[in-house]
Amino acid sequence: MTTQVPSKPLTRVVVSGSTHGNEMSGVFLARHWIKDPSELTRSTFSATAVIANPRAMEKCVRYTQQDLNRSFKMDYLVALDSEEEPYEVKRAKELNKIYGPKGSPEAYDFMFDMHNTTSNMGACIIVDSPQNSFAMHMANYIQTNYMQKCPIYVYKKGDEESYTIDSICKNGVAMEVGPQPQGVVRADCLAQMRALVRHGLDFIEKFNQGSAFPAFDIDAHTLISREDYPRNADGEMSGIIHPKLQDKDFLPLNPGDPIFQTLDGNEVVYEGDSTIYPAFINEAAYYEKKIAFAKMEKKVFSIPDIQLKLD
Amino acid sequence: MTTQVPSKPLTRVVVSGSTHGNEMSGVFLARHWIKDPSELTRSTFSATAVIANPRAMEKCVRYTQQDLNRSFKMDYLVALDSEEEPYEVKRAKELNKIYGPKGSPEAYDFMFDMHNTTSNMGACIIVDSPQNSFAMHMANYIQTNYMQKCPIYVYKKGDEESYTIDSICKNGVAMEVGPQPQGVVRADCLAQMRALVRHGLDFIEKFNQGSAFPAFDIDAHTLISREDYPRNADGEMSGIIHPKLQDKDFLPLNPGDPIFQTLDGNEVVYEGDSTIYPAFINEAAYYEKKIAFAKMEKKVFSIPDIQLKLD
Repeated sequence: MTTQVPSKPLTRVVVSGSTHGNEMSGVFLARHWIKDPSELTRSTFSATAVIANPRAMEKCVRYTQQDLNRSFKMDYLVALDSEEEPYEVKRAKELNKIYGPKGSPEAYDFMFDMHNTTSNMGACIIVDSPQNSFAMHMANYIQTNYMQKCPIYVYKKGDEESYTIDSICKNGVAMEVGPQPQGVVRADCLAQMRALVRHGLDFIEKFNQGSAFPAFDIDAHTLISREDYPRNADGEMSGIIHPKLQDKDFLPLNPGDPIFQTLDGNEVVYEGDSTIYPAFINEAAYYEKKIAFAKMEKKVFSIPDIQLKLD
Repeated sequence: MTTQVPSKPLTRVVVSGSTHGNEMSGVFLARHWIKDPSELTRSTFSATAVIANPRAMEKCVRYTQQDLNRSFKMDYLVALDSEEEPYEVKRAKELNKIYGPKGSPEAYDFMFDMHNTTSNMGACIIVDSPQNSFAMHMANYIQTNYMQKCPIYVYKKGDEESYTIDSICKNGVAMEVGPQPQGVVRADCLAQMRALVRHGLDFIEKFNQGSAFPAFDIDAHTLISREDYPRNADGEMSGIIHPKLQDKDFLPLNPGDPIFQTLDGNEVVYEGDSTIYPAFINEAAYYEKKIAFAKMEKKVFSIPDIQLKLD
């Protein structure tokens, strides 16, 4: 993914659903848009929808062999084909051929990747880096025109290689809406996701038409680290998310605040030395990844103005 | 399961968790109580906890080959052992040997079976029949002492054979708490489940001690039928739960009220001729069973007094 602002109109845009096969806003919207893409059409471009992981969607699971959305590192994409490689690696290579190749001039201009979480994160925009001015302008546009309470989550730590599906395109964002159980489609979450994509497409349309987007300052949450659950000597979880932390995504957590509760009535408090802003609190898919919540800090970023130079 | 009121104190009582391996209140409580059963002890008996489906728990899925909680029909339990039979049938037979045999004098006296739902059903008690006076008295005791808003759900239709895990014991109830996503343990749901079981155990203690439980009238919800989602010619879901129905479990639904929404903006209304009380609205596990919600009616039942005759 480049962080350079596009020098030409974005015409090849893709909207991915079922990157995780049990996150149902994306599954239902992508299926609908494949049949009827009229909502994805603007005057300067038409986006296409894709079911990223059809096999996981059929089984209504996050993935079948390994997490597809961790399968787009270059090592996977350039590995020789083999009988033994997981289905999701095969599928990542296929998607990379269609919408990439990653890092090449042939790659699609932009990908929207639709996700749901069981955490109370509301509607949230996930970007790779605050240096990605185009994505930050899109987020600002959505916050301004759609709703103020649509936090920005910066998922990459430093120079970490991108591993997500949108990294095969020139640029992209993930849209995250919750809380929604896995395997359930809630009309309210679906409507939020639909609005996020609609406003994102509108932003690209305005950019393509040469609109000026002035510089601004904006809050974003950046990942510090991930917190595991407390565990006993056998590695089993010995505590669960404290009721006072549950559903408090993106709200301040101060040193001394309770974060876990054990079944025999004890509590574990946050022992850091500064206020953090947790996210993905009690996300179902992260139990196996040993993540109770993501520790985020909130920072202000200055984003420069952008404008497409029309010929 | 008998509907006769016990003529002796109940001394063999079991609490089942992980009957569905991704319903986490029961998974966490059963694991805790297996290590430390002190909470399950009363003066007249001690209950034991069991992990009903350990393999499903390990994988954090509802079941591995077929729904364990539909595997306790007599046909399954008496079938000859075979290499091909699903894991859950094998496990049902094992459980039947330990806590049954179903319908025999050797069976355990009572089973509490702990479940979670993604539906907004709150804390709910599921009984097989309003003729089960002992279970209805337990439900009334819990409503009176714990919380009024703890509806009774009667799951069996007429003379249908019992297929649930508690049917191998002489008597039993299921405790259902939601909304909670599959694979997530929420402290608030866990606390509700723990209170339901605690009050249920207290009721058995009082019964064993010879307390008199006078007759009463009580509301209960009985199953009329199950409603599928709207589908297109290919059998795919063409509508989702309407936002006005979402989270409205146990509230009245009147003819003409919206129940489904299509992605192109149409709504489907309820066409019945009388008020119903839906439950299990948008339950994740019921998509594959083609159940959008359970259609219930609310009725008043007169429950006779019960009292154990002490020697």
